[in-house]
Amino acid sequence: MFVLGIDPGLSRCGYGCVEARSSGPRASALGVVRTAASSPLPERLADLQRELRALIAQLAPDVVVIERVFFQVNVRTAMSVGQASGLAMAEASVAGCEVVQYSPNEVKLAVAGDGRAGKAEMQRMVQVLLGLESLPRPPDAADAAALALCHLARAPMGRRVAAAVARHPGPR
Amino acid sequence: MFVLGIDPGLSRCGYGCVEARSSGPRASALGVVRTAASSPLPERLADLQRELRALIAQLAPDVVVIERVFFQVNVRTAMSVGQASGLAMAEASVAGCEVVQYSPNEVKLAVAGDGRAGKAEMQRMVQVLLGLESLPRPPDAADAAALALCHLARAPMGRRVAAAVARHPGPR
Repeated sequence: MFVLGIDPGLSRCGYGCVEARSSGPRASALGVVRTAASSPLPERLADLQRELRALIAQLAPDVVVIERVFFQVNVRTAMSVGQASGLAMAEASVAGCEVVQYSPNEVKLAVAGDGRAGKAEMQRMVQVLLGLESLPRPPDAADAAALALCHLARAPMGRRVAAAVARHPGPR
Repeated sequence: MFVLGIDPGLSRCGYGCVEARSSGPRASALGVVRTAASSPLPERLADLQRELRALIAQLAPDVVVIERVFFQVNVRTAMSVGQASGLAMAEASVAGCEVVQYSPNEVKLAVAGDGRAGKAEMQRMVQVLLGLESLPRPPDAADAAALALCHLARAPMGRRVAAAVARHPGPR
């Protein structure tokens, strides 16, 4: 199974594709899509849309995991993160991928065991979990890979819960 | 010239296409794209993307005008408005349209002469300016038409300013 994490952003949109193998998770792609701050916003969004579409077509992930952003950011940031995440979710849905969102805290808890883990700690954990020779860079790519790793860590639990619910449906 | 105004939103995305004629502006389309609140977010965004793409292809506007949203809304609203506006801007850009953004205050000032005009006043002004027999409904469609009217009111001024600057470029 291939899981593509996307850390949405307009200037830098991180992506990290992780393959779940019996020997452990391995990175099949890590990188960042950038759009030129000098270009008009609609062009930047169209560029990002095209890049994300090509990336999803090329990597053919089963699941696309996108960071869910909440109240702690300011509205200007939320607007541009919202624009980027909307494009990513629409492209993933059109491509037939399962789309899942996790909050930054959920990702930190699943990957580093600490919902308040810092950037450096997260990069280090992603390096260890993926068996990379050096720290994953830039940080946006590491954040994206962490989203994919979070899904792999949580998905088995979700499947077990769903199976248990199916066995014991309980009262309506 | 056809100008398509889009009032971005996920549950209700208003649109209003206005044709600039020598006899005055006339509405060529007014309506709302809705997505089902019961559907998963990625599907709703994919639905909205497909509807906006079809709308732009059908109406073939020269300019697409999208509401610019600022700090006054809460972050949760900003996120979903950002997602919808990002899709609209990307689709308009890919279709080769000029894309323009105005703030709600700019629209109210241009259409009603009052940056603090209320919903009912804006609907009434849109009705008068477009020569409609009844109030434009729902309000999202009226808001979208007001965006298009704002652009028609401001665009000639912009062209005159650009022409004046071209004649008197001034010191670098």
